[in-house]
Amino acid sequence: MTPDGALPPGSTIGVLGGGQLGRMIALAAARLGIRTHIYAHHADEPAAHVAAVVTTGEWTDEAALARFADAVDVVTYEFENVPAAVAAYLAARKPVRPGPLALEKTQDRLVEKDFLASLGIPTAPYAAVDDAGALIRHIGRIGRPAILKTRRFGYDGKGQIMLREGSDVGAAFRALGGAPCILEGFVNFEREVSVVGARGLDGAFAAFDVCENEHENHILSVTRAPARMAPETATEAMDICHRILDALDYVGVIAVEMFLVAGIGPDGARREKVVVNEIAPRVHNSGHWTIEGAETSQFEQHVRAICGWPLGSPRIRGEVEMRNLIGDQADQWKKIAAEPGAALHLYGKAEARPGRKMGHVTRVISKPAR
Amino acid sequence: MTPDGALPPGSTIGVLGGGQLGRMIALAAARLGIRTHIYAHHADEPAAHVAAVVTTGEWTDEAALARFADAVDVVTYEFENVPAAVAAYLAARKPVRPGPLALEKTQDRLVEKDFLASLGIPTAPYAAVDDAGALIRHIGRIGRPAILKTRRFGYDGKGQIMLREGSDVGAAFRALGGAPCILEGFVNFEREVSVVGARGLDGAFAAFDVCENEHENHILSVTRAPARMAPETATEAMDICHRILDALDYVGVIAVEMFLVAGIGPDGARREKVVVNEIAPRVHNSGHWTIEGAETSQFEQHVRAICGWPLGSPRIRGEVEMRNLIGDQADQWKKIAAEPGAALHLYGKAEARPGRKMGHVTRVISKPAR
Repeated sequence: MTPDGALPPGSTIGVLGGGQLGRMIALAAARLGIRTHIYAHHADEPAAHVAAVVTTGEWTDEAALARFADAVDVVTYEFENVPAAVAAYLAARKPVRPGPLALEKTQDRLVEKDFLASLGIPTAPYAAVDDAGALIRHIGRIGRPAILKTRRFGYDGKGQIMLREGSDVGAAFRALGGAPCILEGFVNFEREVSVVGARGLDGAFAAFDVCENEHENHILSVTRAPARMAPETATEAMDICHRILDALDYVGVIAVEMFLVAGIGPDGARREKVVVNEIAPRVHNSGHWTIEGAETSQFEQHVRAICGWPLGSPRIRGEVEMRNLIGDQADQWKKIAAEPGAALHLYGKAEARPGRKMGHVTRVISKPAR
Repeated sequence: MTPDGALPPGSTIGVLGGGQLGRMIALAAARLGIRTHIYAHHADEPAAHVAAVVTTGEWTDEAALARFADAVDVVTYEFENVPAAVAAYLAARKPVRPGPLALEKTQDRLVEKDFLASLGIPTAPYAAVDDAGALIRHIGRIGRPAILKTRRFGYDGKGQIMLREGSDVGAAFRALGGAPCILEGFVNFEREVSVVGARGLDGAFAAFDVCENEHENHILSVTRAPARMAPETATEAMDICHRILDALDYVGVIAVEMFLVAGIGPDGARREKVVVNEIAPRVHNSGHWTIEGAETSQFEQHVRAICGWPLGSPRIRGEVEMRNLIGDQADQWKKIAAEPGAALHLYGKAEARPGRKMGHVTRVISKPAR
């Protein structure tokens, strides 16, 4: 380590998880002369193909976790459902960045909403729902449509049900297995946007341009940057990201998903605001556009942050569009490869199951004036 | 393999050699969903940190070479001194791209010059020198200064001696160990340039902008693109590259190093021409600028070519400067990392010996108009 706490080139980052996010972290780290050691359940996961070392093990395998911790200089993760006990076990041995506090505040939707509320950051109205009675009690106040979500382990629309007028709320609660839930009021948004930002070991902050996201079947389909929104709303969105990072004493890249809400004020002028939907304490699919579209990619930025390096410039290179290749959309690889300026990314997954993220393609459409 | 001979995503390329060129090939391949299998003498070489599989072995280890060939879909190499017997052994098992003909024509400086002459491509005047008598005989015709070079295994100025007025030519020949040599007339060049080009499996051709190169102590120091030269001279340089690729029925990326020679014609106007210095049948240090500076990098282009994919767009993104980090220049990593827009590349080498290429930094200085 250098005197200011930076890990020098030749250091090894340990990544919990072997998916495409870990893969792209490893590729970015390699460019900087940093080695990657992946901890994954299987040896053939996407990140394992490009990592210097792979340790395979379950979350309960303390011996494997200890070997992993001994072999790396810093630990990070590519998904937020790292068990708290694992994070604590590793944090006792090596720096874990982002720290366990970020996991604690983002693994549970209720804890996350309370955390945001404590910072005065707008969210949808919400209520804890531990039983069908609470659901019936709260839905009157929150109104319909509303969304019932399990507090933990939801992603890509899994673990959530929309409640409309006439929906059987008891059946909805039972359909989620009776797990502890959160009821969220529906936000009538104009579009979904996200801020991918980073905080360095020294507390420095940098955010990429706000981007807008389109989903299909609850899975991210297209991201475009910069998002169409008023400059002051974009500034507000970035400021929210900054406040979240500071409150978590965060080190690394974070993604804050937001709704852009617009209306007409009493003076007849357009009003915009952002409402936070959820936080991902990691690199994020809506930041993939930065690989070609920004001066520093989200993956390099994350490596810089967790290694204690200066953050890189997040400057955008043009108008950027990122499209996910889901399931058999990846069969279009040769057509995309033949398109000038289209940057094809494939994750090395053997089987193109429906709904599976197989890759993405980024197009930098035009360049901004300097 | 697809009907047109393209290797689909999930295929494995085998790379002979584990240095930084193999490393950057592996990183580019990974983005396209292609796996890399490195054949290297040691398990800790730069490319091994990012490859899916590594086979360690000497060139004489036929069992290791056979295992390697069995495990890959196509073989390529990151340096031109692959023994001909190894190339032939592998070519009997799997496609080797570029093919053995490219190695045959570029491993020996005399064979290379004869090959260029057969295509009518200008080179320095040259002569074969197998003994001191031949050296004395030819130097009268070729004149001084001239350069005596070993025919094989020279790189970065190794294996060559400048002969000036008064030099002891017999001593020079003995200093090169009495190995078969070539004597080359000195070209009074304005600058050194190179063309990094590619030829696809389908015979398609694409070249990056001609770049200009500065050397220090015979090692590449700085590359700038585009090179300062008349457009018609640049076209001529690219055409020479194209003719070489076609003559070799080449598949992959090649680098053609040239001298730009300028003078004033009888009409008082500036005259430019290019004279070929040498050919590298592989990705090349003078093409590193393409990673950030072109729409497709030389490494991705090489992977596309050897996998039978369409070539990518070589379009330049601006004015680009690439500086090598040699020896202890890599100690400047943190200063470079703090510079907005500077793309730092480090190769993962543990020991910064003098003259050793440890990394490079690329700056895209301005953007061209669309």
